[in-house]
Amino acid sequence: MKAEIIAVGTELLLGQVVNTNATFLSEELANLGIEVYYHTVVGDNPKRLEQLLVEAEGRSDLIVLCGGLGPTDDDLTKDTVAAHIHRPLVQDEQALARLHEFFTFSKNKMTENNLRQTLMIEGGIAVQNPTGLAVGTLITENKTTYLLLPGPPNELKPMFQQNARPLLEELFPQAEQLISRVLRFYGIGESQLVTELKELIDTQTNPTIAPYAKPNEVTLRLTAKIADELMGQQLLDKLEAEVMAKVGAYFYGYGDENSLVKVTVDALKKHGKTVTAAESLTAGLFQSTLGDIAGVSEVFKGGFVTYSAETKAHFLGIDPELLEKEGTVSEACAIAMAEQARTLSDADFAVSFTGVAGPEELEGQPAGTVWIGLAEKGQPTIAVLQHFNRDRSYIRQGAVMKGLDLILRAVTKKK
Amino acid sequence: MKAEIIAVGTELLLGQVVNTNATFLSEELANLGIEVYYHTVVGDNPKRLEQLLVEAEGRSDLIVLCGGLGPTDDDLTKDTVAAHIHRPLVQDEQALARLHEFFTFSKNKMTENNLRQTLMIEGGIAVQNPTGLAVGTLITENKTTYLLLPGPPNELKPMFQQNARPLLEELFPQAEQLISRVLRFYGIGESQLVTELKELIDTQTNPTIAPYAKPNEVTLRLTAKIADELMGQQLLDKLEAEVMAKVGAYFYGYGDENSLVKVTVDALKKHGKTVTAAESLTAGLFQSTLGDIAGVSEVFKGGFVTYSAETKAHFLGIDPELLEKEGTVSEACAIAMAEQARTLSDADFAVSFTGVAGPEELEGQPAGTVWIGLAEKGQPTIAVLQHFNRDRSYIRQGAVMKGLDLILRAVTKKK
Repeated sequence: MKAEIIAVGTELLLGQVVNTNATFLSEELANLGIEVYYHTVVGDNPKRLEQLLVEAEGRSDLIVLCGGLGPTDDDLTKDTVAAHIHRPLVQDEQALARLHEFFTFSKNKMTENNLRQTLMIEGGIAVQNPTGLAVGTLITENKTTYLLLPGPPNELKPMFQQNARPLLEELFPQAEQLISRVLRFYGIGESQLVTELKELIDTQTNPTIAPYAKPNEVTLRLTAKIADELMGQQLLDKLEAEVMAKVGAYFYGYGDENSLVKVTVDALKKHGKTVTAAESLTAGLFQSTLGDIAGVSEVFKGGFVTYSAETKAHFLGIDPELLEKEGTVSEACAIAMAEQARTLSDADFAVSFTGVAGPEELEGQPAGTVWIGLAEKGQPTIAVLQHFNRDRSYIRQGAVMKGLDLILRAVTKKK
Repeated sequence: MKAEIIAVGTELLLGQVVNTNATFLSEELANLGIEVYYHTVVGDNPKRLEQLLVEAEGRSDLIVLCGGLGPTDDDLTKDTVAAHIHRPLVQDEQALARLHEFFTFSKNKMTENNLRQTLMIEGGIAVQNPTGLAVGTLITENKTTYLLLPGPPNELKPMFQQNARPLLEELFPQAEQLISRVLRFYGIGESQLVTELKELIDTQTNPTIAPYAKPNEVTLRLTAKIADELMGQQLLDKLEAEVMAKVGAYFYGYGDENSLVKVTVDALKKHGKTVTAAESLTAGLFQSTLGDIAGVSEVFKGGFVTYSAETKAHFLGIDPELLEKEGTVSEACAIAMAEQARTLSDADFAVSFTGVAGPEELEGQPAGTVWIGLAEKGQPTIAVLQHFNRDRSYIRQGAVMKGLDLILRAVTKKK
């Protein structure tokens, strides 16, 4: 089962856009047991795309194309593939209905060219686009299967995961399946995690252990290759226990689609607790991160962004003399912010962030210095000092993750 | 002058690494007036790489290879290209001296396989590696030029910029250069923009017009191919004026690295105005977006996240009866939020967001319904109703962009 990925788009060849779709699809296909042998990028040029299709058919069973399904004249992938396999394009009714619904709801003007997005290749299976308007197609012709997906990653990803993957699983069942489990860790770097697990990793065969560093967290993917699902799960259980014996203190949850904020919000819900925040350098990023989670209103009612000393005093009622004497980047300020935010909103927990987002230093302290406070009803308020390296965005993200970690540990009483 | 880029590395095909080298090299080559027609990724497999070289030679004058110059057994690019053009590998003395110096300085033990990194293809020009140990080669054989570069981006980039680019400039002097300009638009979709500019786009030759859709905005890249820089800028000026005559109402700024929030913060600074916010469904995302910009403290002091009806009443002092009577997803609520936030923080402008982030409906209104308020000192407060389609994240991002647009237009008095 050989596959290759063809990304279509002149913007890729001009270096304006990175081909992250190929990376995403490669990982997804590997999980399906489908091996990817080539990635190719070609511009919005039907002749060169056609030539590539000829080459690809000679060496691959599955050709995944991404890009060129949009409304404009340079979106030519669908037309080119259809002409190549001598099939016409036909309207997909479901995509058409969705298009009309979109324009009715948003009250934007629908231009004629939008209809192009609802065309699919005749005889194929329409692949619906949950976050966009361009419909995809899965079609097999002369032993080659073509999967056409849109270019924008925020459309391609959900479309693949929700609609294309199940179709591929059905079309290409694997004798041995890959059964995998993702463990997520916060508070330990990739190199330290790998060092702690060195013996396990060096001797891995089946299941395998693949560490992956993401900003401010690390995941481990345990993968067993086996015919029987239950036996696979047992292998993973055993390996997981060995991993947890070494680094379980940093584990916070399972799964690719999980996150520290999701686990934290779930824990707050489970324990019936509410949270608020007072944010200085993070400027709302903590609360906005909570807001990403549907249904967070159960545990989060609101909070404060106090970017300046004046708003810290004015919105939260912190004594200006304390701010003057201790500075805003201080333990005392973080504690006062958390306590006042908690009191004002009558939440069970409050977290506060005050520090130096950079690039300039502040109050004589270098960029990356952050105090994070945690107030809990009936408990002494604490504040922890963190030092984040790298850029402004990383510092603010890092602070938010640490805030979530503090809340999660407090709610679940985990040390 | 046609070029293509071949990246060698199984890790790319497994989706473990993103092919940022191709993006970087494409941009660099475009600046040299060298057009890139293909990117390809192939695994650490000499046979498949050899086959690709045959195809590439048939269509490109310059083949840039990256990856596979390292010390380990799967680093096969150099050997494969050398064998393909029937030339031996020879030691490069400068790279060898550098290797010895490195191991003397770092006191690490030098293993035998490190010597592989100092080999180059006989008859070519050695391309030294300022930040690594693997030497590259530039060599022309039978009208095809091969440039071999290492895989790690932190080695490839300085090596290309310091050592490979000057060699290419000498080898391929360009009569014409590419001069480009990026225009950014908010408030118009890609399909509508393209429809408005249809005549210009259909007749484009030099300069060209390339539209690109990003979430909640569209960019247009105007590119002239011309020998003289000044004449190129004049061509772009003329085309830009034609574009602006049609869609100038949606234009907000220039450049690849620009954004609506950056332009808005700059405008606030320029006019000496401050801004605050009261956020419900966006939950701090607007303020956090402001916080992305270094130096925003000059124009932003803080604000409120009022996710629930209680915090809208309690933090902002909005009459609970108004919330009860009008609902929180209402023009009246958006106006009250903006006015109260502005008054409480004594800012020049306040923006408010209240609506339905979804996926569930709220107060009988569907997900994507958002009221955005704008209060300005000495002006009547307004609120606009927006309908965003797609998912929760898109709805919240869309609301934030519209809020920035309202502020920017108010500050710059643009209709």
